[in-house]
Amino acid sequence: MTNKAFNVAVIGCGVVGSGVADILIRESEKLSARYSRKVALKSILDIRDLTGTPYEKYAVCDPKSVLNDEEIDAAVVTVGGLDFAYTITKKAILAGKHVVTSNKDLVAEHGRELESLAYDKGVRFLYEASVGGSVPIIRPLRICMGANNISCIMGVVNGTTNYMLTRMEEDGLSFEEALWEAQTRGYAEADPSSDVDGFDPARKIAILSSIAYGQFVDYKKIPTAGIRKITADDIAIAGALGGRVKLIACTRLENGKVAAYVEPQLVMNTSYLCSVSGAYNGILVKGEYTGNTFFYGIGAGKLPTANAICGDIVELLTGAENDAVKPGFIAKEAEITKDTGSSKYYIRLDNIPDGEFTPGIDNIKMVTCGSTTAFITGTLTPSELEETVEKLSAVFPGASAGLVLKVLDASV
Amino acid sequence: MTNKAFNVAVIGCGVVGSGVADILIRESEKLSARYSRKVALKSILDIRDLTGTPYEKYAVCDPKSVLNDEEIDAAVVTVGGLDFAYTITKKAILAGKHVVTSNKDLVAEHGRELESLAYDKGVRFLYEASVGGSVPIIRPLRICMGANNISCIMGVVNGTTNYMLTRMEEDGLSFEEALWEAQTRGYAEADPSSDVDGFDPARKIAILSSIAYGQFVDYKKIPTAGIRKITADDIAIAGALGGRVKLIACTRLENGKVAAYVEPQLVMNTSYLCSVSGAYNGILVKGEYTGNTFFYGIGAGKLPTANAICGDIVELLTGAENDAVKPGFIAKEAEITKDTGSSKYYIRLDNIPDGEFTPGIDNIKMVTCGSTTAFITGTLTPSELEETVEKLSAVFPGASAGLVLKVLDASV
Repeated sequence: MTNKAFNVAVIGCGVVGSGVADILIRESEKLSARYSRKVALKSILDIRDLTGTPYEKYAVCDPKSVLNDEEIDAAVVTVGGLDFAYTITKKAILAGKHVVTSNKDLVAEHGRELESLAYDKGVRFLYEASVGGSVPIIRPLRICMGANNISCIMGVVNGTTNYMLTRMEEDGLSFEEALWEAQTRGYAEADPSSDVDGFDPARKIAILSSIAYGQFVDYKKIPTAGIRKITADDIAIAGALGGRVKLIACTRLENGKVAAYVEPQLVMNTSYLCSVSGAYNGILVKGEYTGNTFFYGIGAGKLPTANAICGDIVELLTGAENDAVKPGFIAKEAEITKDTGSSKYYIRLDNIPDGEFTPGIDNIKMVTCGSTTAFITGTLTPSELEETVEKLSAVFPGASAGLVLKVLDASV
Repeated sequence: MTNKAFNVAVIGCGVVGSGVADILIRESEKLSARYSRKVALKSILDIRDLTGTPYEKYAVCDPKSVLNDEEIDAAVVTVGGLDFAYTITKKAILAGKHVVTSNKDLVAEHGRELESLAYDKGVRFLYEASVGGSVPIIRPLRICMGANNISCIMGVVNGTTNYMLTRMEEDGLSFEEALWEAQTRGYAEADPSSDVDGFDPARKIAILSSIAYGQFVDYKKIPTAGIRKITADDIAIAGALGGRVKLIACTRLENGKVAAYVEPQLVMNTSYLCSVSGAYNGILVKGEYTGNTFFYGIGAGKLPTANAICGDIVELLTGAENDAVKPGFIAKEAEITKDTGSSKYYIRLDNIPDGEFTPGIDNIKMVTCGSTTAFITGTLTPSELEETVEKLSAVFPGASAGLVLKVLDASV
């Protein structure tokens, strides 16, 4: 043991925070041996009383006990929400401590300022755990593909909605039934909007875009749609066609501008993203020098997320100190543009009048399931899609497009 | 530009080396801006005359031009084979230069000594490109899962044999025809033994085992079988059963001992490894805190491999200096044990006599294709497998087990 000890404080001993504490306690010896310095959990800050828990001996209740403790090298911020998480992160950085977090709201909302502040203070602000749970994605993008030119990232990055869609598929549950089940099992919040309306994946794809393109991407500017309109019939039709409905977060670099979106898509089984089930996440990265690379694993949960946080702590132990995206670099905000690519589409028509109709439109296939009628189109540009929807409305008077999904296959 | 320049020499301007040179030339500005120091290709050492090539201005022909150049920070060793690669790597490390290599023979054979030497000299010996081509796997294991306890790694890590098996599947080619095609296209060497007999994947799984378990694994002690015995009929039967034949490299940690092997298996389509086609690689990692994680991408080739080398250069730019597996740590050589797990098996019987036979053995299914007869067993221990093969030989006098493959499904 030649170097000084490396001490960690965990701020917020909830699901993920207690997982980090568990791993640090169990693996302290292994990490200490590997890095020739004592690596240890020193404090746990929580407003709850931790008496009688395995965390009792680490418990502190005053933020100053962490901030003013010069022996603490890194603070793990595992509190949710923005207010306290932001304040304590800023104070920890200003106190000269590295900060590692899984709080994606914090990273998407304040990451730009916090990364810049950390750079100025000569510490790191790391957040591998904010995207993908156990799936290594931020470090592979930053380091392994650090010389590469990334053109597109496309993924299933929200475990809650993917669990719901999988349950709708398996047991024909409605959206409401699947949501109720996800809430009962603790996968979805009482207010599920962040997941089911796509804001959580929008934050994640904004974080990945910023890293991949070296430009700041504001998640609030990303067109975002969730899964509320998806019905069990849509999912059954998708299955009959050899595909599945998935909530896809996507970002592309097009002529220096960023085309990002979150929306449900009909993913065909020729795409790797089709096989991402339940609470798993899968992320496809396209790069100039690498072609397609795919990363897959458990997208959330106590130990998978805690493991990602501990990976950031390991990075700190390696001494890597120069990989903050520089403030001057991150200061450039990306220009957001629309994704104008062509695609096949799934169009569900609602309120189709009684009677027999034939679409009479070229290159379109009608599919039905229960009382649901939908169409699969050939490859269309965005304006051709609009025309097709208009034509369908003319053929079926009174009907309206209830749902339009891009079809994602291996060619994309 | 506050820091001193970071200069790179490429040693061996073949397929991968020229790819590294191309990327460094093209991305020098991007990397220099990101890391606030000039990052540049300075020299290319090759015995060939590079006059008239894009590399002419970097060309040097004397190793001393690299070794004695104090401005060179890192040497990229992209020469193949062991003799010169080993000598120059050792000299570069002794000259105080970081070494980054894609030469898996070098890493598997001399990595232990070279990593130890680099540690003593305060430089890094990095080799992400030695396994998986474009697939980030070594850094995710070392850093992202640095606190995790890895229990198993299983992958398709040899692009040449996977290309051959895919071609046998697509067009019913024989092993010899597929090999001839792979050689014609430059995927396989004139002496294909390293690939088709499994020595290349054995080296790769030894490297991954050493990193994952923190114990040195000698590739020469890994039981290794290749794909020479696989016939087009085996592959057709696998397909009819919903699977594919893949050359699997596997390592498990069992009670502190390492059970590793390379062998062809019948991989069912419930496993992620089933979908790895052509020259792609796919690697499944099982860890205590993460469950299953899967990594997938192009397994070889000029730019994918060069990108992995450039990722190691990016790691050097981040200042990470303490992540060498310590000599004291790597000095412990792993005890190699047999994999004693139960499995279902595919057994092909050759020289079956004419006549009608029923196996009369419980829990076994006979399948035929062309003149080939094979059996799929229930789950058997290794000794039960031996008994089953004996029973089959008794039922079919004169027949012998021509091929025995483990069946790999999602439960493994």
